[in-house]
Amino acid sequence: MALLDSSRHSRDSVLSGVNPDLASERLTASFSVEKLTAVLDGGAEHTRMRRAIAEAIESDPVFSRENQYFQSQNERYEAAVRKAVHLQKKMREMGWTENGPEVKYIHRCLAGDIAFHLHRVFMRSISVLGSDKQVAKWIPLASEHRIIGSYAQTELGHGTYLQGLETTAIFDIATQEFILNTPKISAMKWWPGDMGRSATHTIAFAQLYVRGKCYGVHPFIVQIRSLQDHSPCPGVTAGDIGPKMNFEHIDNGYLMLQNVRVPRENMLSKFCEVQPDGTYVRWGSQKINYFTMTTVRISVLTDEVILPLMKACTIAIRYSAVRRQSKLKPGEQEAKILDYQTQQQKLLPQLAAAYAFHFINTYLHELFNTGYQEIQGRNFDLLPELHALSSGFKAMVTQYCTSGVEICLRACGGHGYSLLSGLPSLYTNILASCIYEGENTVLFLQTARFLIKCFMAASAGQPVPPSVTYLSSANPRKCPAKDKLDFLSADIYVKAYEQTAIRLLSSNAAKLQRLTQSGVDEHEAWNQCTVELAKAAKAHCHYITVKNFVETVEKLDHKAGIQKIMKNLCDLFALHGIFSNAGDFLYDGYLSEAQMDLVTASYLDLLAVIRKDAVPLVDAFDFTDKSLNSALGSYDGQVYQRLYEWAQKSPTNQQENPAYRKYLKPLLQNTLSKL
Amino acid sequence: MALLDSSRHSRDSVLSGVNPDLASERLTASFSVEKLTAVLDGGAEHTRMRRAIAEAIESDPVFSRENQYFQSQNERYEAAVRKAVHLQKKMREMGWTENGPEVKYIHRCLAGDIAFHLHRVFMRSISVLGSDKQVAKWIPLASEHRIIGSYAQTELGHGTYLQGLETTAIFDIATQEFILNTPKISAMKWWPGDMGRSATHTIAFAQLYVRGKCYGVHPFIVQIRSLQDHSPCPGVTAGDIGPKMNFEHIDNGYLMLQNVRVPRENMLSKFCEVQPDGTYVRWGSQKINYFTMTTVRISVLTDEVILPLMKACTIAIRYSAVRRQSKLKPGEQEAKILDYQTQQQKLLPQLAAAYAFHFINTYLHELFNTGYQEIQGRNFDLLPELHALSSGFKAMVTQYCTSGVEICLRACGGHGYSLLSGLPSLYTNILASCIYEGENTVLFLQTARFLIKCFMAASAGQPVPPSVTYLSSANPRKCPAKDKLDFLSADIYVKAYEQTAIRLLSSNAAKLQRLTQSGVDEHEAWNQCTVELAKAAKAHCHYITVKNFVETVEKLDHKAGIQKIMKNLCDLFALHGIFSNAGDFLYDGYLSEAQMDLVTASYLDLLAVIRKDAVPLVDAFDFTDKSLNSALGSYDGQVYQRLYEWAQKSPTNQQENPAYRKYLKPLLQNTLSKL
Repeated sequence: MALLDSSRHSRDSVLSGVNPDLASERLTASFSVEKLTAVLDGGAEHTRMRRAIAEAIESDPVFSRENQYFQSQNERYEAAVRKAVHLQKKMREMGWTENGPEVKYIHRCLAGDIAFHLHRVFMRSISVLGSDKQVAKWIPLASEHRIIGSYAQTELGHGTYLQGLETTAIFDIATQEFILNTPKISAMKWWPGDMGRSATHTIAFAQLYVRGKCYGVHPFIVQIRSLQDHSPCPGVTAGDIGPKMNFEHIDNGYLMLQNVRVPRENMLSKFCEVQPDGTYVRWGSQKINYFTMTTVRISVLTDEVILPLMKACTIAIRYSAVRRQSKLKPGEQEAKILDYQTQQQKLLPQLAAAYAFHFINTYLHELFNTGYQEIQGRNFDLLPELHALSSGFKAMVTQYCTSGVEICLRACGGHGYSLLSGLPSLYTNILASCIYEGENTVLFLQTARFLIKCFMAASAGQPVPPSVTYLSSANPRKCPAKDKLDFLSADIYVKAYEQTAIRLLSSNAAKLQRLTQSGVDEHEAWNQCTVELAKAAKAHCHYITVKNFVETVEKLDHKAGIQKIMKNLCDLFALHGIFSNAGDFLYDGYLSEAQMDLVTASYLDLLAVIRKDAVPLVDAFDFTDKSLNSALGSYDGQVYQRLYEWAQKSPTNQQENPAYRKYLKPLLQNTLSKL
Repeated sequence: MALLDSSRHSRDSVLSGVNPDLASERLTASFSVEKLTAVLDGGAEHTRMRRAIAEAIESDPVFSRENQYFQSQNERYEAAVRKAVHLQKKMREMGWTENGPEVKYIHRCLAGDIAFHLHRVFMRSISVLGSDKQVAKWIPLASEHRIIGSYAQTELGHGTYLQGLETTAIFDIATQEFILNTPKISAMKWWPGDMGRSATHTIAFAQLYVRGKCYGVHPFIVQIRSLQDHSPCPGVTAGDIGPKMNFEHIDNGYLMLQNVRVPRENMLSKFCEVQPDGTYVRWGSQKINYFTMTTVRISVLTDEVILPLMKACTIAIRYSAVRRQSKLKPGEQEAKILDYQTQQQKLLPQLAAAYAFHFINTYLHELFNTGYQEIQGRNFDLLPELHALSSGFKAMVTQYCTSGVEICLRACGGHGYSLLSGLPSLYTNILASCIYEGENTVLFLQTARFLIKCFMAASAGQPVPPSVTYLSSANPRKCPAKDKLDFLSADIYVKAYEQTAIRLLSSNAAKLQRLTQSGVDEHEAWNQCTVELAKAAKAHCHYITVKNFVETVEKLDHKAGIQKIMKNLCDLFALHGIFSNAGDFLYDGYLSEAQMDLVTASYLDLLAVIRKDAVPLVDAFDFTDKSLNSALGSYDGQVYQRLYEWAQKSPTNQQENPAYRKYLKPLLQNTLSKL
């Protein structure tokens, strides 16, 4: 394996030990890879910090992911807890802090393969929703892992629709306690991570009842396991929900509560409180209780969604420059599969999307940081827009990136299907992001509701939030583009996206109005429009993403070739969206048949242009071989040798065939005399 | 568990033990479920046989899949071999034969969860490509499992492009043997099932060399493991390729050959032969060597592709009638998620597709049976059309069904992501079908090449094969539909599909011609059109599927409501395709904007109509609970109780927490004194 242990540093001599087909791709880059990496990191000093952290973590054997693809659910879980505990020690040693600049690089490097994620959400909930006193009591305990927390919202029978949660918390004035119950099987908490086997405490969401009156869903800190021997507390039944498509290392759990009592002080009470006499007091919107979830939706995008797409692109594109198959012309050498238009059409739009989403993610994080400050100051004005943006973008980005990872996997043929390629686990992991933190269709419809409201307001000349001012734009009825180069002009395609988003919203608004005017109940009318409303919400987010990509490119340094290649990717992202959703752009004649031909021509031309820089463009993501953990995607491109060497380590090759003596030998022994 | 052990027979009393929300769905069926099942089976007597076989297999504990979701790769493999060996015994006991009518029902029931699939391909290859003498020698040995075969075609460095295979077979006149070698790492055979740990023999595909001249790829029977002790034969290195996304029960393997000698008689020689003096003789097309693969492409569709989609629909639709979430109107009970238009839009088109593909599959099997007869009589005229059809339909059906299963999985939210839902394994299994037996893009392009040839021939007034005579049709330039009911007329939508397929082909033909006339090399021109050529091939297959669905519906009995509901499904399948690919139909104005609105309206109306029969329509697939192996999809709809009961059985709940003593206890013990 020594030969194959290439590291980032080997790039100083791109040719040594590197598959020559891959090495040659790096000699012709039209831009500086190192400078693009720094752009992505937000500065070269961040790149240095990130690399130093990666080095420190990857050189530590506890964090090794070498045998990950061969481990059972129990082994994965044990290793993940070990890593989480070890990380605390490591952070102290290295002087890294939970609120320091290092933490995001640490988690990028661990790639989610560690326990106590929900413990972090537990802490964030207390920080956001807890009173100063609650923060002072619980955060130190939790941050030192002297308790292990979880976040118990989802129930067996309820997910995204929080109002329907069935767990109850009844205030007992006599004892000054809340009595928590999961009164039926569907009320059982189900899915929370870190809860099945690890957690001692959880934030349980329950319907608050005081003197028989229901005040809606509130969060309560509940101890579920003994700190002495880890046995379930009285009234608690908890366990692991069993195998899943991925996340074997996480103990997603179930929790039944039967008359479990917690003191009055355990209801998180920054924004509302039950006073000793049972009086319920609230400061600000009850919706603030959902704000943790809103921020989690945005915070998952980086590590759980966009980085996985970048990794999948890195693996698939490097492999496609090494894999040769069939001939472009008779008599020639077999061609790199990356030279086939069909392979470019699969992979390069995903690469462009990875960049597009990296930039929109930066935009969203800045927006949410501002919003968070406001909310801490008890100004809730931004909540509706933040909620709509977090819902729509969570849905759009997870859906797009999941599909992108799947395309990368399939584009690697059979070898992509081997766990050793790293692609299956990226896929099964990212797929969950379409479901957790709000099911995507439900989220799109929440965004659609906000957009329809804004559209009506804009139509009535009323002011609307900044992200939707475009709804008041007066656009031309026809796209003015005349030749294929016009479609490389951002003005042209941004307007086309804008026009399409407006048209989808306005036709939904009109249909809703038509239905209600014809006597259909408004809720039924809404349901009859939901297929198209979800589409409109997606078109809105797609438009904002394109616009933001364009604006980001404009601000880039025009030296070192970076602005130019980013412009190409931006064009590709935009034109691929038009090519793939042609019906939406052709529908009202905004684009003509002839213009759609120009889009197609321009789009296919771009594929050939970007193909030349495809490998440097994934190199710029700067993943170490260890973080990719892929036999197909390593920097040196020694794919066949690595597949073979890794396969040797499989437990299926480490012992006698378990079926031979019992089943095969008795059959085959009869043959001997007869052959 | 006794309560939950519902079986097919419980349907006689639909209400007993069944979730009332699911039971109520069955009381209003517009057709006879039992009669529709018989239609799908091709007659009630087949239904009876199928059920009897399912009963016999499912009552046998060796075939149990109860713990499947909890097993390791080694455990799955051992169980699969055990089942394969036991099946032979069972077949003898029951009087079932490999060529009898029972065999397809046996494999439907086993759902692929058994070893020795490639052993069957080994046998089929010998039957199709072997001389009478070879058949007489090898088939009895193989059919009694006195040897275990595999089919070693794919190499580490070569998949679909067979001409590029690097394994060599050099004829040694002196010894009358072939000497087989995998001369480099990329030449190693990689992926063949049953080869990693089980097989004693394989059909190895290798470039045949006689006196230094290469005659192309040929199949050779090679012994790879000793019949005495199962150790590798001299010159053979073999093993398991390690973990994959699914197929843990199959020992996909690798094989290196170093100067492995087999006698001259081991080259399969029905159609060609190396004579003792080294003379190479061929009867008929060399392409016949690929015919096994061509037939396998069609034969996998039933069990590996269409049945999984049917199962996924069954699970997701039953669950969606039980799961209630959110409210359609304030104040009402929470609604069944199947009542949301967005959920209908996800699931019902998949249901319609499952029926569409069931019917096209019947059509393809009939066509191939005819073709097989012809080829046995050494008439190869049908080969090009069969090859084009098998390529295009394999690609189209696997791609569509894979996407359908994924939609079903995601539509079940978090619970769909649990292995216990059965959906993840259906998905990871069907995903492989997009890759094995020919990568789909390559296959679409093979079909496109055939279609372009036929299109040129048709344009020149020459005769073309039956499946493409439509290319000579003279169609109107505009769709004549005037209101939304017109789009429920098969004539209207079949013509729209036909027109679109012709238009995509003709514009590709024109672009190819334009490019070559402008001086672009013909192979480069082909590459520049491949994105659109693949699309044209898909459109062709989609058209044939719609047309075949229409023709099937016309032939159905109009009694018992079956023809009516099948007509609805056919309309839905067709209109969903137009709605989802609107750009292709709007592009040249064949459909206008107003007509596209009618399509959308008609399509959305159909969702509401078919929703009423959705549960009976999946009941008609007649899967037993054991064959679904899903906590969400059982006939009785007791989803929450079953999820909870199955989770208890997970190994993660069967032992002490492996992380507690080592990692958690040391942390938490410090807490005690301080809390």
